Amino acid sequence: MAVTSRRVVLESRPVGAPKPTDFAVVEAPVAPVGDGEILTRTIYLSLDPYMRGRISGVKSYAKGVDPGELMVGGTVGEVLESRHPAFKAGDIVQGYDGWQTHNVSKAVGVRKLDPGQAPISTALGVLGMPGMTAYVGLLDIGQPKPGETIVVSAASGAVGAVVGQIAKLKGCRTVGIAGGPDKCAYVEKELGFDACIDYKRGGADVVAALQAACPKGVDVYFENVGGDVLASVLKVINPFARIPLCGLVSQYNATDMPAGPNWGVLLVNRVLVKGFIVSDHLDRMPAFLNDVGQWVREGKIKYREDIVEGLENAPTAFIGLLQGKNFGKLIVKVGEDRTRR
Amino acid sequence: MAVTSRRVVLESRPVGAPKPTDFAVVEAPVAPVGDGEILTRTIYLSLDPYMRGRISGVKSYAKGVDPGELMVGGTVGEVLESRHPAFKAGDIVQGYDGWQTHNVSKAVGVRKLDPGQAPISTALGVLGMPGMTAYVGLLDIGQPKPGETIVVSAASGAVGAVVGQIAKLKGCRTVGIAGGPDKCAYVEKELGFDACIDYKRGGADVVAALQAACPKGVDVYFENVGGDVLASVLKVINPFARIPLCGLVSQYNATDMPAGPNWGVLLVNRVLVKGFIVSDHLDRMPAFLNDVGQWVREGKIKYREDIVEGLENAPTAFIGLLQGKNFGKLIVKVGEDRTRR
Repeated sequence: MAVTSRRVVLESRPVGAPKPTDFAVVEAPVAPVGDGEILTRTIYLSLDPYMRGRISGVKSYAKGVDPGELMVGGTVGEVLESRHPAFKAGDIVQGYDGWQTHNVSKAVGVRKLDPGQAPISTALGVLGMPGMTAYVGLLDIGQPKPGETIVVSAASGAVGAVVGQIAKLKGCRTVGIAGGPDKCAYVEKELGFDACIDYKRGGADVVAALQAACPKGVDVYFENVGGDVLASVLKVINPFARIPLCGLVSQYNATDMPAGPNWGVLLVNRVLVKGFIVSDHLDRMPAFLNDVGQWVREGKIKYREDIVEGLENAPTAFIGLLQGKNFGKLIVKVGEDRTRR
Repeated sequence: MAVTSRRVVLESRPVGAPKPTDFAVVEAPVAPVGDGEILTRTIYLSLDPYMRGRISGVKSYAKGVDPGELMVGGTVGEVLESRHPAFKAGDIVQGYDGWQTHNVSKAVGVRKLDPGQAPISTALGVLGMPGMTAYVGLLDIGQPKPGETIVVSAASGAVGAVVGQIAKLKGCRTVGIAGGPDKCAYVEKELGFDACIDYKRGGADVVAALQAACPKGVDVYFENVGGDVLASVLKVINPFARIPLCGLVSQYNATDMPAGPNWGVLLVNRVLVKGFIVSDHLDRMPAFLNDVGQWVREGKIKYREDIVEGLENAPTAFIGLLQGKNFGKLIVKVGEDRTRR
């Protein structure tokens, strides 16, 4: 079977905010399926803020994407052909095929999904990497105790929404920070946070709103954005607070790194800050899938997906993600989902 | 016995670097010794950077000193009169009598010293709060493993010197940062660090020197100073590094808090930063006294004291401490030490 893959490659390294012309759609033949390999067609592609780092050219924890190379990304797909003992044609799998319609791979890190358990797109969101990021960061680093107050930024996003809902389940006062009244209303009314603050109000108002929403101060701040929001939360941080440092999306397009907060507030309050990357914590996958899977099935954790149709729209969707334009987990539908009835 | 205490009080809140005129020496009668109280005469007074915070008027983890009030501080003294069951006249004790010659107190937090075990002044340094700060911060937060590289700033100081020597005993490559060639020579030759870098060389040179001294990067950075030194160390920080945040002496005289480093380096390297205050960790006192006491007696941990004669010289000595003018643990000799032969 001669298969052609449509693929989005990095055309040029963006300076500042990426432009659509920094990406290009190309077609390339897919190699024949070798021994121990599988051919998949992509159904869903996950778009996530970390991808901005991969195309920046800055040395980081993972290999980057150079101009001319395929954009990386998590995917859900269908196995079309298998010469790998663990997979057969028709299997639905979560893997890392990147921004393309078809791929042949050795299936490293690929896991089979059960479409009967949950919609398969959730393997890229609430039951995938973003959900596990929330689970590990909040529980293992944040260590919230009942009655404590936790604040999470990007609260309507794929990670933040799960952070806050787990915190509520753990008996915490839970306050979100999000951009705009629609997202804040969703976080409060649909997700059940105690409060959600619109960061677009600006500095002093955000601090005042945090003080009102967190009368006992902030014990855990799950950090997704950095910048002014971080500075505001540090004004209400409690002694012995924990800050799981998950992302800094406000600065991902910056050409010069902005300064950070003075560390005096960390010292006098004995604060813990811990940067983390979910892929360092794969040992927590079974516990995560067990706990969050059950909470999702019981309706205790809700999720929202922002699904964009068509691979060719991935660059524009990704550019919007970095500006907070998506509402819910951003996913590109690349091919037909025959599991959805 | 009618006793008069000479005392140093805060005359006015310093703005920026304290001046001698921000302090005043006064005399005041000491109250009679009540039930459960002791009268002590001060032999040694400890001067430490944290005192700058106490006179700043900024809310912090401990009550501050207001103008007109006695300056706080750890002391070693002799019990002159006791109506407390745990103490008798002639006992040598470590307490918190502040910047004065005599005090009557309820002996809260006062512990008896054995002059036969170690010079009594060490209860303010290597075997006191600074030594325990080093012990707790390095071992409990830094968690150094044999073969790792640790860097400590203010390396010739009361805390830094103990940090580095414990790190060497734990099998680490140990690099100090200190101000000037004399302190660096002492840190390398007397204390046995693998290298010591003179921060007065300035930014780019400090980074280059760190790269040379830490060919495998930095796994633990014990932070005492902040500012440019912190920025330089973060350029060579390793993935999964730990930063016990003990002090930020470079900014204690600042009138506007300088910005800190961008948190991106903490995120991509999954760094842990933890502010701490030794008084939160008093449960570690027995282990500290046991371990470091033995290392001092065996000559495995060395220490250096910078002893200033006379209570009236405490303000000038303290002002110099904030500028790094002392060399070794800064102590004021307030009264005669009859235990030294």
